[in-house]
Amino acid sequence: MVCTDIHSALAPVLARYDQDQVVFVVDENLRSSSVLSRYFIGISSVLLPVHESQKSLETVQRIWDFFFESNLTRRGLVVAVGGGVLTDLAGFAAATYKRGVDCLNIPTTLLAMTDASTGGKTGFNYRGLKNSIGLFAPPVETLIWPGWLETLPPQQFLSGYAEMLKTGLVDVRRDDVRCTKGDGLWEALLRYDLDTTPLDALAPLIEACVAAKERVVAADPHEDGLRKVLNFGHTFGHALEEIQMVNGKSSNGKWLHGYAVLYGMIAELYLSVVKLGCPKEPLQQLTRLMTDYYGRPQCKCSDRAALIALMQQDKKNERAAQINCTLIRSVGDPVINQVITPAEAGEALDYLFSL
Amino acid sequence: MVCTDIHSALAPVLARYDQDQVVFVVDENLRSSSVLSRYFIGISSVLLPVHESQKSLETVQRIWDFFFESNLTRRGLVVAVGGGVLTDLAGFAAATYKRGVDCLNIPTTLLAMTDASTGGKTGFNYRGLKNSIGLFAPPVETLIWPGWLETLPPQQFLSGYAEMLKTGLVDVRRDDVRCTKGDGLWEALLRYDLDTTPLDALAPLIEACVAAKERVVAADPHEDGLRKVLNFGHTFGHALEEIQMVNGKSSNGKWLHGYAVLYGMIAELYLSVVKLGCPKEPLQQLTRLMTDYYGRPQCKCSDRAALIALMQQDKKNERAAQINCTLIRSVGDPVINQVITPAEAGEALDYLFSL
Repeated sequence: MVCTDIHSALAPVLARYDQDQVVFVVDENLRSSSVLSRYFIGISSVLLPVHESQKSLETVQRIWDFFFESNLTRRGLVVAVGGGVLTDLAGFAAATYKRGVDCLNIPTTLLAMTDASTGGKTGFNYRGLKNSIGLFAPPVETLIWPGWLETLPPQQFLSGYAEMLKTGLVDVRRDDVRCTKGDGLWEALLRYDLDTTPLDALAPLIEACVAAKERVVAADPHEDGLRKVLNFGHTFGHALEEIQMVNGKSSNGKWLHGYAVLYGMIAELYLSVVKLGCPKEPLQQLTRLMTDYYGRPQCKCSDRAALIALMQQDKKNERAAQINCTLIRSVGDPVINQVITPAEAGEALDYLFSL
Repeated sequence: MVCTDIHSALAPVLARYDQDQVVFVVDENLRSSSVLSRYFIGISSVLLPVHESQKSLETVQRIWDFFFESNLTRRGLVVAVGGGVLTDLAGFAAATYKRGVDCLNIPTTLLAMTDASTGGKTGFNYRGLKNSIGLFAPPVETLIWPGWLETLPPQQFLSGYAEMLKTGLVDVRRDDVRCTKGDGLWEALLRYDLDTTPLDALAPLIEACVAAKERVVAADPHEDGLRKVLNFGHTFGHALEEIQMVNGKSSNGKWLHGYAVLYGMIAELYLSVVKLGCPKEPLQQLTRLMTDYYGRPQCKCSDRAALIALMQQDKKNERAAQINCTLIRSVGDPVINQVITPAEAGEALDYLFSL
């Protein structure tokens, strides 16, 4: 839920647990957050780094160890406060600690608010592959407080906005799910002012994206079919992220997921045009946003073969070595399980690198 | 399901998957099993040790690595063939690999057939605590073929039989779930000939135990309440196992779980008599089985305090440091969430060590 006051939203949840059975797992960037400090008095907490490079089994072990040292029982509550890397790690650790303890997500980045902290995906990177070990383990609740975004660096904001744009491209446009009267989520997102990023106009867009994602997840929690629409942009995006061709970096040097997804969406929109006859307009609109705000990917054409090989190993593939994408026929009309040949993947990369 | 021919039971399950997407995780003791060898031609397999000491995160990593090296996708099947340690490890690795791949259990020990491979508990030992990291992740199917038991060492047989005795003690004795006309599972188990261990008379007892466990698990899959009846004997049993006071060892030196559970049941039957007025008869019957077949625990009274401390850390506890047991009012009438004081726990240990 999107809340206007994090304290009054958190209090009734914490009241359901014994006070000595609530532990906090917190992004170390929030060490000095005045919003949080009141909760740390007398409550166990651990501060964790949030680099993508530390989204590892070792960090999961640190969290497990912290739970054991806090004498957390199965009746306890883990409160995960931070970005998507942190909530993914804490969610996995909580779901596997003593066969599962409750986890509450408090996402503090736009990316985590609109994507990572809803839908129950948890996990970590293993053997250099993103989220290749993990679980579907929904949090007991997700408290979204846009106030965190006031101090979010612009690159982090844009990273989250890319996932919102993805939701706008794939959200099925039925009358009952339209974001604003007269047009859809995609148009509303294009109209939002990315220069001044007003929070009051952003809150309803966050709500619409979370609601769109929740509808999809409720219909297909374990990604057997429909949920794959949310993977739009991610087949290419994950490979670009794994090979570190992403342009946007956070202040701590972490590669930003949303930038990779934005580049991935351009490659996959190109394939949507070529293979499914999608109109060119969304591709042009997204390319304009890239040049105006995100910048081009860090292109090294010599990485082309490695990118294709990474896509062939993607966990989203139904068959070994066969690249699987979600594409769109038009905005709001996604098509899952599109098999891409290595040649087609190369063509889409060439297009992306030519921009 | 209990089957009379493992090959004809396995074939239709394997047929549901692409052949290159089936991998075997096999107990290394079965290396030369003629039953299995036909499946290993052209199919990826890994042989794993099954010592309790190797029920570790490192072994889970070995299994994950094997899955990646086999190019297993999310549409694949993991076939776990072995005892409970192996099916617990393979089940956890499968449930977390790429957020979950199907797992088929083929238990080869009596313990795994009647307990570990049904009910979906998976996991490994961490920080010296049994199964302290894990998940509820039911297999797609469990194929029970009693033929494996022909070559099972007697200690392994007795270890499994102890878990069957536990099921007999806690299974609710309603007319519709009676094992044999006129009396219950407990009496039928006491009548079974442990000197000659005939397989034909054992098969219906295995079926009754699996059915009893499945009824409990279906009613409470995540152990929020009722399922705790299956923990009878395990609060003391796990502590005895962790401190290695178990008498029975397998040929490879592994401490046998069922022996620990049998000693644990004697301690918890003692508490059932003292605290809940349970008749003494089942305690006497179980003690007789211990002296006739299992032998006494390896008693070192100096470990008494350490055993109590271990029980206070048990993941089954609802509150930190409070020992939680399942006890029985009589055979077939279990009572969950009985809080035991350290003094009572000590008294039960004194009784057990005095036998």
